[in-house]
Amino acid sequence: MRVTLRGGFWSDVRERNARVSLKNICRRFVETGRFDALRCEKRENPPHIFFDSDVAKWLEAAAYLQRNYPDAEVQAVIDETVATIVRNQLPCGYFNSYYQVYKPDRIFMERTEHELYCAGHLIEAAVALDRCGVNHALLPAMERYADYIRDRFFVKRDTGFTTCGHPEIELALVRLYEHTKKQEYLELAKFFLDERGTKPEEIYPWMDREYDQSHAPVREQRSAVGHSVRALYLYIAMADVGRLTGDGELLSACRALFDDIVRRKLYVTGGVGSGWYGERFTFAYDLPNAEAYAETCAAIALAFFCERLAKMGSCAQYHAVLERALCNNILAGESLDGKGFFYVNPLEASVEYAAYARRIPGMPFKPLLQRAEVFDCSCCPPNLVRFFAQVGGLIYAEQDGTLYVDQYIASDVSACGMEVSLRTDMPFDGNVVLQIRGRGRLALRIPVWQTSVACRVNGEYVCPEEKEDYLFFDVDGETRIEICFEMRPRFVYANEHVRADSGRKAVEYGPLVMCAESCENGMELSGVEILSLEGALTERTPEGIRIRVPARRLRTGSALYSYLPPEKETFMLTLIPYYGWANRGENDLQVWFL
Amino acid sequence: MRVTLRGGFWSDVRERNARVSLKNICRRFVETGRFDALRCEKRENPPHIFFDSDVAKWLEAAAYLQRNYPDAEVQAVIDETVATIVRNQLPCGYFNSYYQVYKPDRIFMERTEHELYCAGHLIEAAVALDRCGVNHALLPAMERYADYIRDRFFVKRDTGFTTCGHPEIELALVRLYEHTKKQEYLELAKFFLDERGTKPEEIYPWMDREYDQSHAPVREQRSAVGHSVRALYLYIAMADVGRLTGDGELLSACRALFDDIVRRKLYVTGGVGSGWYGERFTFAYDLPNAEAYAETCAAIALAFFCERLAKMGSCAQYHAVLERALCNNILAGESLDGKGFFYVNPLEASVEYAAYARRIPGMPFKPLLQRAEVFDCSCCPPNLVRFFAQVGGLIYAEQDGTLYVDQYIASDVSACGMEVSLRTDMPFDGNVVLQIRGRGRLALRIPVWQTSVACRVNGEYVCPEEKEDYLFFDVDGETRIEICFEMRPRFVYANEHVRADSGRKAVEYGPLVMCAESCENGMELSGVEILSLEGALTERTPEGIRIRVPARRLRTGSALYSYLPPEKETFMLTLIPYYGWANRGENDLQVWFL
Repeated sequence: MRVTLRGGFWSDVRERNARVSLKNICRRFVETGRFDALRCEKRENPPHIFFDSDVAKWLEAAAYLQRNYPDAEVQAVIDETVATIVRNQLPCGYFNSYYQVYKPDRIFMERTEHELYCAGHLIEAAVALDRCGVNHALLPAMERYADYIRDRFFVKRDTGFTTCGHPEIELALVRLYEHTKKQEYLELAKFFLDERGTKPEEIYPWMDREYDQSHAPVREQRSAVGHSVRALYLYIAMADVGRLTGDGELLSACRALFDDIVRRKLYVTGGVGSGWYGERFTFAYDLPNAEAYAETCAAIALAFFCERLAKMGSCAQYHAVLERALCNNILAGESLDGKGFFYVNPLEASVEYAAYARRIPGMPFKPLLQRAEVFDCSCCPPNLVRFFAQVGGLIYAEQDGTLYVDQYIASDVSACGMEVSLRTDMPFDGNVVLQIRGRGRLALRIPVWQTSVACRVNGEYVCPEEKEDYLFFDVDGETRIEICFEMRPRFVYANEHVRADSGRKAVEYGPLVMCAESCENGMELSGVEILSLEGALTERTPEGIRIRVPARRLRTGSALYSYLPPEKETFMLTLIPYYGWANRGENDLQVWFL
Repeated sequence: MRVTLRGGFWSDVRERNARVSLKNICRRFVETGRFDALRCEKRENPPHIFFDSDVAKWLEAAAYLQRNYPDAEVQAVIDETVATIVRNQLPCGYFNSYYQVYKPDRIFMERTEHELYCAGHLIEAAVALDRCGVNHALLPAMERYADYIRDRFFVKRDTGFTTCGHPEIELALVRLYEHTKKQEYLELAKFFLDERGTKPEEIYPWMDREYDQSHAPVREQRSAVGHSVRALYLYIAMADVGRLTGDGELLSACRALFDDIVRRKLYVTGGVGSGWYGERFTFAYDLPNAEAYAETCAAIALAFFCERLAKMGSCAQYHAVLERALCNNILAGESLDGKGFFYVNPLEASVEYAAYARRIPGMPFKPLLQRAEVFDCSCCPPNLVRFFAQVGGLIYAEQDGTLYVDQYIASDVSACGMEVSLRTDMPFDGNVVLQIRGRGRLALRIPVWQTSVACRVNGEYVCPEEKEDYLFFDVDGETRIEICFEMRPRFVYANEHVRADSGRKAVEYGPLVMCAESCENGMELSGVEILSLEGALTERTPEGIRIRVPARRLRTGSALYSYLPPEKETFMLTLIPYYGWANRGENDLQVWFL
């Protein structure tokens, strides 16, 4: 199924990525020696152990974007980078710019040091480049690498560990299998899954076994634990292998893990992994706002996990969570100009606190209030670009001859005997127009946030068949379906067990979680009470949307404590989409209000 | 002025300390090698660099308690300990069980390693033992040590640093001066104050200069910063030296620092030093509840600082803060059985969070939900005992011939030509009876928490003279003054800038801050809303007091997020004094309610 984005919000994001982000990240990666490291020459400052994966994600992003925004400069970088990798690959097939230069005698001996993680991302890049027809040289090289991994880990079993401390190779091998159809890659992925958590293996001494999901065999895992990106990359592979091998145990583990996340460990923004110490899932309902970690890569991984789960059917719930992550935590990871990136995505921020944390040298957690161009561990920036470049793949699904529309992103597709063109201004407006040619059956996901639906088919109001959160339409010939999912600001409340949000509410507008910044609302946002959404004023702005709502703020005297209750001052609070925060300088941020 | 405690709450605390805490701490200090270390013999496990100060604080506590609860066993430990110190003191006068054994060539070379801090506590112990007539051998030894310190730091100036990284020596030298009347000790204290912050000196590389208050000359310091115990020990010495030398600059710095604390950096429990990283003052209004550090020693130091400030007049405000610290944060430092101690005093606790933090090996901040018998850094336990043993000294003050009653603690005193016996059941009841013999003038502090005052003199209702938060009485002959400060549960609200308490209120009952624990109220206390205090049921219990108030708790469905507001379930919330929390097993704790 070939999907083409056609205008609208997500096209703009992808174009911004192609024109700005991809090149900017490239420049910063050049400046920080990430491309140079691939030459495998010894340097005074050794590269980071996972520099290879940063470049690999950039290559994957570039592969997708070159299809729609071909750029000779980018092509040159791709080709040169691939050539460098191929040139420096060891005769056996191994490639790792850190180990083969600095620790050749420790190759495949150190479980926690990300070798197979880097290999996995290189494999994903190779598949993407080949599939998009952008470069065909990396794939055979990475197949040789995968063969070598198979030989050492699966055939000879002479390595210092069995499963990598950072899952990724498993899902990459599945992608390699799906692209090459070579069964041994799927087998190897399954082998790594089967082995995980079955025997004691090396872990970080300052961490527990849950940290890298090696505490239990994967089929027995029911609670999402440990480093959130590690966890979700593992779960993606479990869903993939489960689906491809018909392994019910794997699939039910995946469903249980999804349920655990969605019922107990998910931020309203779609973020996961609330604990900054260990960048991890902590425990049920532990969702602090200011100390939230909610790594961009974790939300991206969650979105991919949802997409994989949706392939097994019963997909509306998965796509609802995917939409939440997509329109909030993930989008927030990138600045509106495409140049800066957030690694951590808090739901509350204080300029004063951040300034204090910056000032104390050893302070362990230093919240960042502005997006950065690069990080020491720079996984998120290229991950965002490769993710946004793939949103087209999230929109439609084909199941039993029906074309499912799961995400409302302006696009054209030809599938199930129909040519469909979908136009919408989502996430800012709930109107969707589908122009269909051909005969077939369509299923349109009903968003969880809508308050009413109105449908017209060829201008006539209709009541379509509704089942399991989808609207079904049988069409024939030229058909125009117009749907209006009513979009208005709504309060959302957290479960009673979420301590951080007790007595508070957030505001959603369609799929967007809204937030307030101090630049236009004044400080002390934590004391702001939203009175009602009845009088809310919603307006489109160049950056998206702005909602003004009647609110009250606390006004006390100067005493620190008083027996008199604070006075309350009414004012109009301005809300913007969460994804747009921190684009106007350093600001206090609030999502949950009194 | 000789004050004798007579029954009541504080007598019980002191007796518990004498019968249980002092001996228990002694036993744990023996078991952990703290007394043994004083023998100055090399061991496989070197003692902690500040073991000396732990023992010194125990000696000081023992000195006070031996006066009222003489105990032969305790006396034997005191005498043996003093003899060991005196025997191992170097001929020059130096004594430090760590440096003289393990790093003799680094004596007085390492600013951050607490040598003068330990010396200061040994000096305080020596003064206490001598003044209480419990042991007279330590004082001359510590005078020789102080002379040696003076010789090296002030006369020869050949040491590796000028001011100690942990203030304490300054206030100890003042106490030595006040006891011996030897001017040179006051001069030396002043010298250390004068030098502080005037030139770059060694600091911990992971900390800033504010951490140990060496960022500015002390007379220029206006904002309470850095490690809170260090800060307050310094401020105490500044107040002492300021008062004794008439140094107006020092005194106005002290007043500004007090104001900064009380207006911006004080927990409602009287705790200070909110930041666990660095155990320090952070920035204005940063008073997190669950992550509160609020070290017991810091609240004790604050109480001492208030006491010193009160000596300069205008004392009601200082004693109000002292009372807040005394009846809440400080009292909470010790378990009701006198055996366990808190170092950190949070205002919110979660059993689940604590269990999680315990489970992750490297977790930087692990909240403790039960008091421990000893800590690696065990400053708080003996500090509490020496503090409680001195509460008698906080009750009365003499100023211009008037006897001021500043704390309502059952006691007898003879001062200003009067014999006064004060009886009260505070902090549980606002009735105070004073039986006076003689002629004179009394001033009784009006607590900030009272809602009305009724006075009777010899059975007749009177309206006494009221000035600057004191009630004045001129008495002659046998006089009975009965005062009732109305004590009832009251809501207290934090300043609008305190993010952690936005939209919340605490409950005070007289000087006591109240709290709720999950053992009798169920979990999810953060979502509890107190409806009113009108229907509050207050009852005395063996442990103090219990208040039941109508409240509501949130009840949501099982979904993590919902568009429906939570239902609210009415129930009676049971409140106990904050100081009594964590005496019934591990419990969730809440002080600030919706």
